[in-house]
Amino acid sequence: MANKQKRPFFSEIINETADKIGDLDKQAVLEAKSKLDSLTKPVGSLGRLEDLARQIAGITGTLSPDFTKKLIIVMAADHGVADEGVSAYPKEVTPQMVYNFLNGGAGINVLSRHVGADVVIVDIGIAADVSKPAGVITNAKSLLIDKKITFGTANMAKGQAMTRAQACNSVETGIEIAREVILKGYGIIGTGDMGIANTTASSAIASVVCGVDAERVTGYGTGIDESGFNNKVRIIKNAIKINTPNPRDGIDVLSKVGGFEIGGIAGVIIGCAAMKVPVVIDGFISGAGALIAELIEPTCRRYMIASHSSVEKGHAIMLRKLKLKPLFNFNLRLGEGTGAAIGIGIADAAIKLMNEMATFGEAGVTQKSK
Amino acid sequence: MANKQKRPFFSEIINETADKIGDLDKQAVLEAKSKLDSLTKPVGSLGRLEDLARQIAGITGTLSPDFTKKLIIVMAADHGVADEGVSAYPKEVTPQMVYNFLNGGAGINVLSRHVGADVVIVDIGIAADVSKPAGVITNAKSLLIDKKITFGTANMAKGQAMTRAQACNSVETGIEIAREVILKGYGIIGTGDMGIANTTASSAIASVVCGVDAERVTGYGTGIDESGFNNKVRIIKNAIKINTPNPRDGIDVLSKVGGFEIGGIAGVIIGCAAMKVPVVIDGFISGAGALIAELIEPTCRRYMIASHSSVEKGHAIMLRKLKLKPLFNFNLRLGEGTGAAIGIGIADAAIKLMNEMATFGEAGVTQKSK
Repeated sequence: MANKQKRPFFSEIINETADKIGDLDKQAVLEAKSKLDSLTKPVGSLGRLEDLARQIAGITGTLSPDFTKKLIIVMAADHGVADEGVSAYPKEVTPQMVYNFLNGGAGINVLSRHVGADVVIVDIGIAADVSKPAGVITNAKSLLIDKKITFGTANMAKGQAMTRAQACNSVETGIEIAREVILKGYGIIGTGDMGIANTTASSAIASVVCGVDAERVTGYGTGIDESGFNNKVRIIKNAIKINTPNPRDGIDVLSKVGGFEIGGIAGVIIGCAAMKVPVVIDGFISGAGALIAELIEPTCRRYMIASHSSVEKGHAIMLRKLKLKPLFNFNLRLGEGTGAAIGIGIADAAIKLMNEMATFGEAGVTQKSK
Repeated sequence: MANKQKRPFFSEIINETADKIGDLDKQAVLEAKSKLDSLTKPVGSLGRLEDLARQIAGITGTLSPDFTKKLIIVMAADHGVADEGVSAYPKEVTPQMVYNFLNGGAGINVLSRHVGADVVIVDIGIAADVSKPAGVITNAKSLLIDKKITFGTANMAKGQAMTRAQACNSVETGIEIAREVILKGYGIIGTGDMGIANTTASSAIASVVCGVDAERVTGYGTGIDESGFNNKVRIIKNAIKINTPNPRDGIDVLSKVGGFEIGGIAGVIIGCAAMKVPVVIDGFISGAGALIAELIEPTCRRYMIASHSSVEKGHAIMLRKLKLKPLFNFNLRLGEGTGAAIGIGIADAAIKLMNEMATFGEAGVTQKSK
């Protein structure tokens, strides 16, 4: 691949997949611009929707990618650091919410149905056995994939969150799932997360990768108070201090202060980029996954569509680091892929505009006179 | 109605309709908040989508309004001031684009289909006979309603754009159409426009109603150059000077420097507010209609949902005057109701979230611990 720095060895799957990520298809981008300019509207008047259509043409190499099948992949895992009281919710909420996803009752289910996307939930490290749910699921609305690495990460306040092998494994899991679903015909994929205490891991990643103090990238998560916030910042600073993550090695950062779902999201992004499928990034946790993916292979950034700007204050810093401009800001802070689902709907609209609008010639409309 | 100032007499239809506009249903707003807080998500974590759900509950008086039937009303008319060379496109584009709408090939058709909305086009003053189109329409996708007041406004650079009776007539037309479609079961309505030179009329309205210099609220429309811009500002300033619109009388402003489609949009807004139906406002031209509607009856503002922030620089000033916060900014400057269509999709999502998400109790999810 041109313009690539030599990448350290992570694992065969990760390195081989990252090697496949190339430039956007410049010819398709030019053709998309030419097509957009021929449509019955002033040139450029659809703004960001035109930018998005051009980017997607560049990603997929076609002006009319097939978005019939859309997917949100929700990576779910637990965090040992939850034991430090960093979250407003107890750990048991992770599997409870997974059942809620499977029953179609969560925010991500509603928004995915709204935009015509399917949902898969990946148990990549939940600290409970969810393969045999306690309650009877009568009306399953999304699929559960069992890829449990182990029962949650270790507490990063006391040592590294996972081994380097587990970190590679989480990224490989994401790559593998992306590959499987793309082969099944999904044309656009959104990332999502579930994991009590995962804003703590994400803030730690942001602090390390963006090189800023923990205070600047730590927020109130699901709703902690001021003393909870101070505790969270202290825990993050201490975890970084004792684990010394290397900010130039995505797998090292992930293993020291990350989460399995964050590694899974990084893998989905790398897998989508390698297979030329647009990947819509949700909020803060997905942003942490994007930072890890970008550290592993910087060119994967071109394949990302940032859906929204989150309430979590570190998110804006992540997006700046990734040079991504979010599509909208609805003050969301739910995660699950809710912002990504809305973003998929917008990307779908952009592609429909490019393909379904009449040209000036077709419609017999007079062009601009001056 | 409580808290209302005495309104001047405009016409029986306008005054009677405006009299029906009341407060939002405070009880429904409280019930919506309580319902939203019971859903399986941190309180408030769906941000603007929750604000929107509460507002819509207040507008409609129910937590589950029927949005099965959604509609974009595109008001189309011509402007005498087009003769002054204020637009990048010739006047003939107005009827040409109407045929494009009827054939389903315009941006608004694509976006309306995307969100599941129907489209009606209202000829409220096109300077051509469009009731008998020259070409054969083989695949009509939207309905044309003939409510032509006359063949375009007069040139406001030489005198007032329309008579006071015509201004009332345009607003009444919007009220009447809103009423008819709401009785047909449309539960949410978006406003749209078509009319060469209508950014000139809208900038003039913004300058008068917001009390700011024409330069501050004039933009490049469909794509004029710098000298075209200077000419446009000069024309607007002169039109305001010679016609002396009264900034406290919406009908006077409309008659002096407005357009039939802008009056029609004002009428749709007033009609929706009177019938407790949410009305999604598009960009700059619809914003001018909203300013006129708000001058006629300030309480109608509560029923408005501002979809987007337009590239037209006067739009932000309009939205500030209306105390409306737009949902998104995609750098759109197409009009037609394209931003409103996307906004309808978002409003639909907000209502689905409130109605389809499981509560903590239903899903057996543990509530916040602190």
